[in-house]
Amino acid sequence: MAPSFVQNGGFPAPRTAPTSVTGRFASVYSDVQSSRVNHPLRLPSVLEKPFTIVDGPQSSAAGNPDEIAKLFPNLFGQPSVSLVPTDDSNAALPDQKLKIGVVLSGGQAPGGHNVISGIFDYLQDRAKGSTLYGFRGGPAGIMKGKYVELTADYIYPYRNQGGFDMICSGRDKIETPEQFKQAQETAQNLDLDGLVVIGGDDSNTNACLLAENFRSNNLKTRVIGCPKTIDGDLKSKEVPTSFGFDTACKIYAEMIGNVMVDARSTGKYYHFVRLMGRAASHITLECALQTHPNITIIGEEVAAKKLTLKNVTDYIVDVISKRAEDNYNYGVILIPEGLIDFIPEVQHLIAELNEILANDIVDEDGLWKKKLTDQSLELFDLLPQAIQEQLLLERDPHGNVQVAKIETEKMLIQMAETELEKRKQEGTYNGEFKGQSHFFGYEGRCGLPTNFDATYCYALGYGAGALLHSAKTGLISSVANLSAPVEEWVVGGTALTSLMDVERRHGKFKPVIKKAMVELEGAPFKKFASLRDEWALKNSYISPGPIQFTGPGSDAISHTLLLELEAQA
Amino acid sequence: MAPSFVQNGGFPAPRTAPTSVTGRFASVYSDVQSSRVNHPLRLPSVLEKPFTIVDGPQSSAAGNPDEIAKLFPNLFGQPSVSLVPTDDSNAALPDQKLKIGVVLSGGQAPGGHNVISGIFDYLQDRAKGSTLYGFRGGPAGIMKGKYVELTADYIYPYRNQGGFDMICSGRDKIETPEQFKQAQETAQNLDLDGLVVIGGDDSNTNACLLAENFRSNNLKTRVIGCPKTIDGDLKSKEVPTSFGFDTACKIYAEMIGNVMVDARSTGKYYHFVRLMGRAASHITLECALQTHPNITIIGEEVAAKKLTLKNVTDYIVDVISKRAEDNYNYGVILIPEGLIDFIPEVQHLIAELNEILANDIVDEDGLWKKKLTDQSLELFDLLPQAIQEQLLLERDPHGNVQVAKIETEKMLIQMAETELEKRKQEGTYNGEFKGQSHFFGYEGRCGLPTNFDATYCYALGYGAGALLHSAKTGLISSVANLSAPVEEWVVGGTALTSLMDVERRHGKFKPVIKKAMVELEGAPFKKFASLRDEWALKNSYISPGPIQFTGPGSDAISHTLLLELEAQA
Repeated sequence: MAPSFVQNGGFPAPRTAPTSVTGRFASVYSDVQSSRVNHPLRLPSVLEKPFTIVDGPQSSAAGNPDEIAKLFPNLFGQPSVSLVPTDDSNAALPDQKLKIGVVLSGGQAPGGHNVISGIFDYLQDRAKGSTLYGFRGGPAGIMKGKYVELTADYIYPYRNQGGFDMICSGRDKIETPEQFKQAQETAQNLDLDGLVVIGGDDSNTNACLLAENFRSNNLKTRVIGCPKTIDGDLKSKEVPTSFGFDTACKIYAEMIGNVMVDARSTGKYYHFVRLMGRAASHITLECALQTHPNITIIGEEVAAKKLTLKNVTDYIVDVISKRAEDNYNYGVILIPEGLIDFIPEVQHLIAELNEILANDIVDEDGLWKKKLTDQSLELFDLLPQAIQEQLLLERDPHGNVQVAKIETEKMLIQMAETELEKRKQEGTYNGEFKGQSHFFGYEGRCGLPTNFDATYCYALGYGAGALLHSAKTGLISSVANLSAPVEEWVVGGTALTSLMDVERRHGKFKPVIKKAMVELEGAPFKKFASLRDEWALKNSYISPGPIQFTGPGSDAISHTLLLELEAQA
Repeated sequence: MAPSFVQNGGFPAPRTAPTSVTGRFASVYSDVQSSRVNHPLRLPSVLEKPFTIVDGPQSSAAGNPDEIAKLFPNLFGQPSVSLVPTDDSNAALPDQKLKIGVVLSGGQAPGGHNVISGIFDYLQDRAKGSTLYGFRGGPAGIMKGKYVELTADYIYPYRNQGGFDMICSGRDKIETPEQFKQAQETAQNLDLDGLVVIGGDDSNTNACLLAENFRSNNLKTRVIGCPKTIDGDLKSKEVPTSFGFDTACKIYAEMIGNVMVDARSTGKYYHFVRLMGRAASHITLECALQTHPNITIIGEEVAAKKLTLKNVTDYIVDVISKRAEDNYNYGVILIPEGLIDFIPEVQHLIAELNEILANDIVDEDGLWKKKLTDQSLELFDLLPQAIQEQLLLERDPHGNVQVAKIETEKMLIQMAETELEKRKQEGTYNGEFKGQSHFFGYEGRCGLPTNFDATYCYALGYGAGALLHSAKTGLISSVANLSAPVEEWVVGGTALTSLMDVERRHGKFKPVIKKAMVELEGAPFKKFASLRDEWALKNSYISPGPIQFTGPGSDAISHTLLLELEAQA
């Protein structure tokens, strides 16, 4: 069992408990939701006592520091910071009433409400008389000045609850000069001392641009980011994981574990499970480490080895054939949602199709196909008919092929079926194959946060409050040492510019926080790679059961995080 | 909160605990699985003390008693029985070593392993020296004589575990005279005193035929059934629920609750959730009672009101339109897997298509369509293109349209989309619609059984042991008074012939246990019907969270069962 991050017993009473859960919640909360509201949240020791903020060394950038310096003249090079305990009362932060705004940006992730609770409780504890505004519906709320004042009564029922419905989220970006102007006006109208942006890589890049913009315009408003995404692809050495990943993976792993028991009991289905996570395959890898499926496809490996769709199909079919020799005509296969994006030849085919569809008529006799390159034509002909039709018929509003709509798990089932049928004819396969498709996504995105995510988010928010109180800007709230007990967690802020690189778009350099991909040399992938052949042929299924917050295993951190932390130690 | 069925504290130690979980399980069990193995199982008081078996009045049949009497000359009319406590040592069952077989038949349902544990523990407690055989892979195991001797060490790791993998299941039926002969031979070879058949309506009908066959051939082997199916459609007054229903519904409801939080947070998706349950809509109804979705389609109501697919679509679209007026462009919609089977016009269309496809060529110009009746043609043209193609292209091995493969939730999304677009043109709808489809099935079928299913199944198995010990045959193990504490549960056996009616197939009368459909006059449906208009327009979502076995709510029985029991009281 992985080490627990929460020590037993001794939880402090909740800080801001109104006498009861009020309003619409009283009637519509389930027993579990009500009980989770009162689940006490611990803080790292450093946040429980007087602390001071210590600067680290000057920082650089993840890549192209010269360009980042040009893009962030006011922020580039600023140090990351740590919170450390102090006995020196002069070092304590000033008595001050702050006005702080908070915004949720992008897709839901379990724990967002706890970040807000953490900010609020910081202000209650350390900057009495402060005000917290929640911008509604994401960054659009900042631009339009749509907000609500967040009070204890307002916030309390959302503690430890899933979803983002306290103030909702949105996917707008603050990009144009006019939009930055709107944000400035809102900051000035509300007299904001600080703003916390809870989001993924894009949103944190945006937070940094906003911090730079506010500073260059001499606004007093500081901006702090918070790492949010179930996909787990916003992380670095100082920001060990994004919140939501732990909860989503535990929920998916429970469902996968159930499906595994079904597979073994029924003995006649291959379950192809597609898992959320488009840009990176962390969720798929973590779920594999938790459940031990027979086959797991990791997008980053497919890309690194330049595998074709045929290669991926052959790998799947090889395992299925070998298992059939042992009379196992069943299994469980995990596939990342973004698999197709990792296969270069598919990207080429789609680019060619977009070009052809924009300029030519797709004739029924297939003459249009002559415009495809040989490689793309070969791939197109390999695809199941339903996928061919989908590629030709379904377009987004720009007329492009809708890659995101391709149900990869169904495509692979059909391709495996065809290949197995061929092998049967050739006499090299003698089993029975039936595929069942699944997609696990939305059911994990808004689950009740696990103990880990609940506690982690609360610390992220509380820490963000401390960073703003000490007038820091352009940092992302970071909590580390996460495999230790909560008391020993390390709290600080990481310079957002230090996470950045540039990408060239439309002839201009754009700053980006590079998505953290599954590292093929990283400990989680290497552990998986060392075990997958065994998992392929033996049935080493693990069915984790419901472990979000009670019972054995509910206090374990994710395998990915644990392995990464162990490797760093 | 629904009343708890388990009283706190005072659990007896597990009866048959070997010193540790052994074999392959030690290495592959998750923490939760291991902890569940040791979850203590209580018995109803009557099973804890000396009891005797009391016959009730002579029984009849659910329908056509004369035909049932002809089909079951040896069993028809026999009484159902109850177990009652006794102080009379003469009334106790004889000291006897029994040889008992057990078989799992049909689809998985959480709790099957506990039925087997219950039978085993009965034999250990009350008929020492007995032997329990498990037939492998369902009824085929009986016919082929494939079995394993079930020992304490063999059974113990499966206690409270999901799936049927202890001995696996199968869908074969014992039907032909030759197959009955094979079953007789196995019973004689193993010198079986009894056989427990764990299965759904068909399997219990088969159990009764076997009981009749064994008795008419003067075999000593008695046959007892057990009510299994997550679909919840095997129940009667004496058999209040089938096992597995409770677990599956709680798992689905957790996922639905998560999706609801997502819907409310995101504010832009209608989630169309198809739920397992082909023949009856109990699962959908129960999940609706647990979670309060905006729209719920109950197949039995659709059939009773002779609704068309257009009617169903209009109902959905009406709610969506009204919600758009309140700026709610999101929602959650539950759909039973078997919806299409409840719509008469769809059945007609499919029958006509099967006829046409068997005899004619489907020409591209659509001339074949002229062979459809007007009503069927209208319906066909109403269907989304993808569904039309599916109907025409995908056939089962007999050449018939594969109704089961139609993804009803996707079909309804497309139909709603089309209708909403029309209304937008007409100016009667002004919202935005995006559908997201889900199917929850396999992830619930093999989950770890809830506290209720674990305890209920154990009592069913223990009771089945008692019925065989007292030489009863042709009964289904029945445990009632389920809303009371476990101690007060009532244990007995119900004459299988009393649950039967006949159906005419190929000119012959066939006995059948009629599937229990959702009763439109029953308490669960009436409660749902009284609330659905409110749920449609307000957002009264309940997110139950994981409540299989720990935390608040985990000891509650299903709403369906509670409402039915309250209505009977």
